[in-house]
Amino acid sequence: MSHATDAAARLDAFETYRARMNARILDEKGHLGIKRFFNLDSAAYRDGALDGRTKELLGLVASMVLRCNDCIDYHLIQCVAAGWSDEELDEAMNVALVVGGSIVIPHLRHAVDTVDALRARV
Amino acid sequence: MSHATDAAARLDAFETYRARMNARILDEKGHLGIKRFFNLDSAAYRDGALDGRTKELLGLVASMVLRCNDCIDYHLIQCVAAGWSDEELDEAMNVALVVGGSIVIPHLRHAVDTVDALRARV
Amino acid sequence: MSHATDAAARLDAFETYRARMNARILDEKGHLGIKRFFNLDSAAYRDGALDGRTKELLGLVASMVLRCNDCIDYHLIQCVAAGWSDEELDEAMNVALVVGGSIVIPHLRHAVDTVDALRARV
Amino acid sequence: MSHATDAAARLDAFETYRARMNARILDEKGHLGIKRFFNLDSAAYRDGALDGRTKELLGLVASMVLRCNDCIDYHLIQCVAAGWSDEELDEAMNVALVVGGSIVIPHLRHAVDTVDALRARV
Amino acid sequence: MSHATDAAARLDAFETYRARMNARILDEKGHLGIKRFFNLDSAAYRDGALDGRTKELLGLVASMVLRCNDCIDYHLIQCVAAGWSDEELDEAMNVALVVGGSIVIPHLRHAVDTVDALRARV
Amino acid sequence: MSHATDAAARLDAFETYRARMNARILDEKGHLGIKRFFNLDSAAYRDGALDGRTKELLGLVASMVLRCNDCIDYHLIQCVAAGWSDEELDEAMNVALVVGGSIVIPHLRHAVDTVDALRARV
Repeated sequence: MSHATDAAARLDAFETYRARMNARILDEKGHLGIKRFFNLDSAAYRDGALDGRTKELLGLVASMVLRCNDCIDYHLIQCVAAGWSDEELDEAMNVALVVGGSIVIPHLRHAVDTVDALRARV
Repeated sequence: MSHATDAAARLDAFETYRARMNARILDEKGHLGIKRFFNLDSAAYRDGALDGRTKELLGLVASMVLRCNDCIDYHLIQCVAAGWSDEELDEAMNVALVVGGSIVIPHLRHAVDTVDALRARV
Repeated sequence: MSHATDAAARLDAFETYRARMNARILDEKGHLGIKRFFNLDSAAYRDGALDGRTKELLGLVASMVLRCNDCIDYHLIQCVAAGWSDEELDEAMNVALVVGGSIVIPHLRHAVDTVDALRARV
Repeated sequence: MSHATDAAARLDAFETYRARMNARILDEKGHLGIKRFFNLDSAAYRDGALDGRTKELLGLVASMVLRCNDCIDYHLIQCVAAGWSDEELDEAMNVALVVGGSIVIPHLRHAVDTVDALRARV
Repeated sequence: MSHATDAAARLDAFETYRARMNARILDEKGHLGIKRFFNLDSAAYRDGALDGRTKELLGLVASMVLRCNDCIDYHLIQCVAAGWSDEELDEAMNVALVVGGSIVIPHLRHAVDTVDALRARV
Repeated sequence: MSHATDAAARLDAFETYRARMNARILDEKGHLGIKRFFNLDSAAYRDGALDGRTKELLGLVASMVLRCNDCIDYHLIQCVAAGWSDEELDEAMNVALVVGGSIVIPHLRHAVDTVDALRARV
């Protein structure tokens, strides 16, 4: 299996698992506080005084310095959909790397692998 | 002493201490690796594929979720100089709050106090 | 000035600053997302399937392992008001210490200092 | 393979690996400081001024805000054995989510998946 | 498959992935800031006022308290190559465990598994 | 008051507060688990397979990447007493800076200020 296929399969599995568990948490269990938190989370990235695509970039950098691969993948999916170029994403990742240090490097590798897979998705 | 004066004095003290210690570290001690790191850090926020003012906003959010008041103050000084409005900064801070959780709240208070002091500086 | 007076003055200053900045953030600035986050935060500690006093203890331990002194003070004020004894708080702090390691020790000192000051308040 | 089987297999693998490595670390290698740390860790959750089941809930929330899936699984196994209900665990997880922010969400998904698997174990 | 083979295969996969992604990031994409960061990172562990092998031990402990398995594996490969014995590595890991707390335990298990696999490599 | 006097007074206040609170926690309150943790912590830095002075350097770097000023000061006091030179401490701090990123810079300033004050103590 090619590397691109590896990363594509990884992203597919993440999206399937994410959708299944969100349905379990929000639709079946439905704890009110948790549901409201998820709503607040979605709302934070909508267009406002800052446009949504800038806020997705903020979410990406926050996820990288806090070192959460699932969060990185989620925001990269949004960033690519919002039209950020590879060069712009590299710049944002560089800020995350400098702020967060070499401990961020494994997550930089993961993020670049994800971006390449997203560009290869038709 | 008014609150605005408190925060202004705090910012002045931070800038004086920062300048003194940077001179001690970079000019007097001058460890090559540390000097290069400081150069990389400055370079990360210069105009490139992303403009510098967007990258300062990324630095602000990274500093808030990592909960470093000195870093928050540094990036807020740059963000205000770069022309970000209160409404835009509030939006960025909201992203940091949602990503980082209530543990960020004391740093949100600090950040708002700093922005108010920076607006009051002539 | 005695040590007890030191810590009492520190707590008074924290509560004054907290009230002033919360009013600034929520009443004057009033960003909708931030206001909703503060509401969610308050709601998380109300009686429910778990009683509020147990949830305050959870908030205390979370604040200690994340090493935020302001958050520790806030939850200790609630924990003491909710009737947790020194022995029970020591047990919770011990869990935080074991989970979070020696890096938590400065915050354990801070927390014990705060509890002593709260017990001395009439 | 059904989702429930996936999570059950994951838990089985975790418990096997944990037992094997603990035996390697404690019985074969036996560094005195490390052995004492493991003893302290076990002792922290025994009944005392706070009962053990409350302390397991503290351990769960600490593990969630520090974002360690293995630690979350370990404390969930104990919490379920101690008789905490789904509704009570949801409340504790909500506190962790509010304190730790959206970066905790992937670990909330993991935790809910684990609880479901534990309930399905006979 | 024996446990030793498991860990050996894991290390092989890590080294292959690391090499492939570093080539992608540094040779193909080649963002100047990121390349310079990687150079600084390598330079930080070269012989200087402290010898390189001591600095690898510092890198190991930093990676353990920050809880990054890939970083732990990388520094363990260097530490074993530099001649640190199991007893010396155990001592360093004990410092990481005490500083970072029980949340480090899953990474201690991972690290011991890695050291055993490295000793078994011819 | 000169800068050197500032930092010296800060260190004196830290040591006084640390001694007072440790006495309060260990001698007066005396929670068994907490006392044992403090003993384990002290024991981790004694001569063993690694000498104590190397382990103090490990403690310093761990404290810097975890960004705890009190912990940094404590380990710097031990490192200076153990005979580490400024050049050697700079090298260790550089490792912490590269691993932990620019978020460590305020703690690097603090650490250099502390070392200077310790050298000025007779």
